[in-house]
Amino acid sequence: MGVKLYGHPMSSCTVRVMACLYEKGVEFELVPVNMFAGEQKMPDFLAKNPFGKIPVLEDGDLTIFESRAITEYISKKYHAPATDDLLRSDSPEESIAVRVWVEVESHHFQPAMSPIIFQHFVAPLQGKAPDQAIIDDHLAKLAGVLDVYEARLGKTKYLAGDFFSLADLHHFPYMFYLMKTPWAAAVTDRPRVKAWWEGMCGREAFKKVAEGMKFEK
Amino acid sequence: MGVKLYGHPMSSCTVRVMACLYEKGVEFELVPVNMFAGEQKMPDFLAKNPFGKIPVLEDGDLTIFESRAITEYISKKYHAPATDDLLRSDSPEESIAVRVWVEVESHHFQPAMSPIIFQHFVAPLQGKAPDQAIIDDHLAKLAGVLDVYEARLGKTKYLAGDFFSLADLHHFPYMFYLMKTPWAAAVTDRPRVKAWWEGMCGREAFKKVAEGMKFEK
Repeated sequence: MGVKLYGHPMSSCTVRVMACLYEKGVEFELVPVNMFAGEQKMPDFLAKNPFGKIPVLEDGDLTIFESRAITEYISKKYHAPATDDLLRSDSPEESIAVRVWVEVESHHFQPAMSPIIFQHFVAPLQGKAPDQAIIDDHLAKLAGVLDVYEARLGKTKYLAGDFFSLADLHHFPYMFYLMKTPWAAAVTDRPRVKAWWEGMCGREAFKKVAEGMKFEK
Repeated sequence: MGVKLYGHPMSSCTVRVMACLYEKGVEFELVPVNMFAGEQKMPDFLAKNPFGKIPVLEDGDLTIFESRAITEYISKKYHAPATDDLLRSDSPEESIAVRVWVEVESHHFQPAMSPIIFQHFVAPLQGKAPDQAIIDDHLAKLAGVLDVYEARLGKTKYLAGDFFSLADLHHFPYMFYLMKTPWAAAVTDRPRVKAWWEGMCGREAFKKVAEGMKFEK
């Protein structure tokens, strides 16, 4: 039994996991879950993830949900010497730095970014007008977060240090979508954040996953 | 140089780390940060954590922020055979289960709970009336999360398995505060969640940390 990923190539959390699978060169089958038909709330899917969210990874007998737990699992289990160690497990200092910046993405970047992407791309698909007040409020929060990143990236090449890690990878989906909005200047006005982002865009794994990232029903 | 924790015994994130330090029997100095005076936004503190949030842990030359990164660091570095291995590092299956439920706390439990605790306890300290609409909205979200926990705890004694782990520990501060609100029934109406919570309350580390958990200026 191979690796199966239940998800959707448009979903940010699915993309996060796909980027990691491509980085590690893991062959997998993407099993599409039709979010618009609510398949993730059906009993079959709830048996895999009781929270009714994509993605879910199945690897043999193991079923894992929560995208950031899945990427950690993949990074550990499928680490191959020819690929970057995304967790920096050999160094206690580097591995804790990765953990800190993984948490920063979860608790600062994602809460600022997610409502912007939702309002701009998802609300219209649901027949609703984007709420500009919500967007503006979160753009202000995002600016604060990216100011910290700009300073940080003056000291280290990537967020956790001079190495690409899971902390950078986790940012890929929301960064990619932000660049398709009218507010890409949040990135391009900050030279180090811009260079960090452009460097990430050059990675083969990200090019591959970007192909499916189109908001449409 | 010993372990220094910059924070406040009332802050949920500080409490999360203190509970972990007590669990592992680590001696530490709590360096108080006056949140109401905005000390966490002053240059001295921003040099430790550029996001201006407590807590921050200093251990020798190492400075770590983000409470859930700090607890992972403590659990790894200060693991003593006489204490529970909060990460279950010896078992790939158990350690990934811990990671999944740590993520659940971060991305489901905490976003539902945090606005309830903020509105009920913190808003009045800031001279504002609690917003009952926000509380009600998040109580409904919390009910959905705790329904999943109730089902889960019918299969395993703790969230990640039949062992106490970081995934359980991370819930302590918000659970403790919820029980002091008029909405404790969210817990007591769910027999397995109630038993899980009462079991945790019996832990010496939690009894110790609970002593300082009073919302007051």
